[in-house]
Amino acid sequence: MSKIANTPQPPYYAVIFTSIRTEEANGYDAMAEKMLALAADQPGFLGAESAREGVGITISYWADLEAIQQWKNHAEHLIAQKLGREKWYASFTTRIARVERDYSWVEKI
Amino acid sequence: MSKIANTPQPPYYAVIFTSIRTEEANGYDAMAEKMLALAADQPGFLGAESAREGVGITISYWADLEAIQQWKNHAEHLIAQKLGREKWYASFTTRIARVERDYSWVEKI
Repeated sequence: MSKIANTPQPPYYAVIFTSIRTEEANGYDAMAEKMLALAADQPGFLGAESAREGVGITISYWADLEAIQQWKNHAEHLIAQKLGREKWYASFTTRIARVERDYSWVEKI
Repeated sequence: MSKIANTPQPPYYAVIFTSIRTEEANGYDAMAEKMLALAADQPGFLGAESAREGVGITISYWADLEAIQQWKNHAEHLIAQKLGREKWYASFTTRIARVERDYSWVEKI
């Protein structure tokens, strides 16, 4: 997922999930991949960006708060969240933010 | 900077900077470190989180939009932004977002 998300004009919402992992890696990558694919199928999903380097940052973009709430309570996602707390994460912070402005720049070639 | 930022109660603001680098590495790490230290000294700075894994994500947190504007126009930061476009970044997107809710979780030991 090494790309900049191609989001529409603001306003839209960002869920910023910042995490520190445990040493338990078993099953994590497969679950992360599965959850990203599942999120991308949800109504209101606009894109996602992710990187881990010590700390992990995953940002998903959504059309509105209702879409975020529905994804938070999605049955398979609830299972993943539970496993995350039990196994994979030592700590995390989730922030819900309204994107008010954005601008992009691309190198001239 | 492998930590989760310890931000205050919302509302506050996030500047989400997502970037793809060029192959030019010369001077980048030193400038990134310098800019982070300088940002941390600005009025209204609340914290930052950063990771690069293919895509780079740096999020800085601020008390209000005025603080973000002042940092954007800081003389030394303007030089860094210019060098970034000339040398280090192939593309980037900056998003200004208002954090409305957050919650944290820490593993019980």
